[in-house]
Amino acid sequence: MKRTDRIIALTEILLTHPNELLSLGYFAERFDTAKSTISEDLGTIKESLRIIGRGYLETIPGAAGGVRFLPSINQEEAEIFLANLAEELSKSERMLPGGFIYTTDILYKPAIVRPLGLIFASIFRKRNPEVVVTIETKGIPLALMTADCLGVPAVIVRHGNKVTEGSSVSINYISGSSDRIQTMILGRKALGVGKKVLIIDDFIKAGGTAKGIMSLMQEFEAEVVGLGILMEDTSWNVTRLVDNYLALLQFDVSDSSIEQSAVKPKNMLYNNL
Amino acid sequence: MKRTDRIIALTEILLTHPNELLSLGYFAERFDTAKSTISEDLGTIKESLRIIGRGYLETIPGAAGGVRFLPSINQEEAEIFLANLAEELSKSERMLPGGFIYTTDILYKPAIVRPLGLIFASIFRKRNPEVVVTIETKGIPLALMTADCLGVPAVIVRHGNKVTEGSSVSINYISGSSDRIQTMILGRKALGVGKKVLIIDDFIKAGGTAKGIMSLMQEFEAEVVGLGILMEDTSWNVTRLVDNYLALLQFDVSDSSIEQSAVKPKNMLYNNL
Repeated sequence: MKRTDRIIALTEILLTHPNELLSLGYFAERFDTAKSTISEDLGTIKESLRIIGRGYLETIPGAAGGVRFLPSINQEEAEIFLANLAEELSKSERMLPGGFIYTTDILYKPAIVRPLGLIFASIFRKRNPEVVVTIETKGIPLALMTADCLGVPAVIVRHGNKVTEGSSVSINYISGSSDRIQTMILGRKALGVGKKVLIIDDFIKAGGTAKGIMSLMQEFEAEVVGLGILMEDTSWNVTRLVDNYLALLQFDVSDSSIEQSAVKPKNMLYNNL
Repeated sequence: MKRTDRIIALTEILLTHPNELLSLGYFAERFDTAKSTISEDLGTIKESLRIIGRGYLETIPGAAGGVRFLPSINQEEAEIFLANLAEELSKSERMLPGGFIYTTDILYKPAIVRPLGLIFASIFRKRNPEVVVTIETKGIPLALMTADCLGVPAVIVRHGNKVTEGSSVSINYISGSSDRIQTMILGRKALGVGKKVLIIDDFIKAGGTAKGIMSLMQEFEAEVVGLGILMEDTSWNVTRLVDNYLALLQFDVSDSSIEQSAVKPKNMLYNNL
């Protein structure tokens, strides 16, 4: 195999196995070449990825070591992406009665949630979450893509019990904006005890759901290391039930006119990237 | 930029923008080089990907043309992956009372559902689905990853109505194995009319849910081009309500002994890959 072919194959393997520790020995055997050659190739790939600002190739030395590709997005690309998304979400046909916004298509489009997951992962990686938690249904794709970029499992809190999940823990919570009492439930096996969790959700208004998930996390002795939200509803002008969350976009239904966009990116938060 | 660096950057862009048509002009401008040079680089990448059997670089000629990376997995890797997954799912601690199997953790683990989505995409791509449809909740990650590999949106059928989805169509269906009447619902905007859809779900027993989704699809004048299921329950020995589905694994609770694995891969179906 020529060097160029090997480098392309190596790049492909690294990118399609994000966060997995792959040993030099594995590559040396697979490409029937010396570890020193592989090491040199990996150095070239690492530098190229650094130049284009798309992820980091981490080298772990020693016998149990190897390399691990950590996907990330650079600030410029993230800003452009979120500005375009805000523009799309501001279209007048997305405004629904009651001050709601239609986002379902966006939240299930892989070409959109993949980069969003990459942005959340780039922001929260340094807090070393072990699990990404969300509540069904619309937050699932965001949580899954974030978990994929971080190399950790996703855990989905549900509204109802299922026979296929074994014993579970449930709590009641008050949806802050509607004052309704609801139930959320999570299987004992799903999360384990004492994990560092990153909570991801698509929307925040009063914060009742987010607060509910945080209470549920206490039942599992989990440490919440971050709360990432795609969009906050800024029309909620009362104190929210949670603080310390990071929203990528803000939505203000009163701004949905020709002069003003209803959805705007929250620029000042990019310094977290 | 040296040729090797450019080739790594090109490979990265192609792999992280699956199914997107990218023009030679776009690359030529981005890398400040001639289209003929880019064309030569892409030829090298195409050949390397072909050798390792991981996806296909499609070239579309003409002024509006360019290249598009179509992710896929080769048969050998798919077989090894599904055999390992069957072994994991056969562990005795996964068996739940009532002949159920615990799969929740697996279905929300990106490192597992990503390859599963790639397998479904590799099988069903030739039928040109325009949308991947599933029903909440556990099928969502599989559907999303399949949609990502196919470059199409996912659409999630729900069990209850939401104010944020506008007008919707609902049907009642009978869960074949439990004889309960349930409701499924899908927003008018979510799917549009006359689409080619691929249905993906995690489990099939009697086939009531799958049949329900197919009836719902008729309401949208959709053409169902495929039905992909992660696991079929072979303990259901009555005729199923749907046929023509493709399952990757089979589960037989009566086989869950030391000598027999409860879950096995369905080898004969790989000729679809």
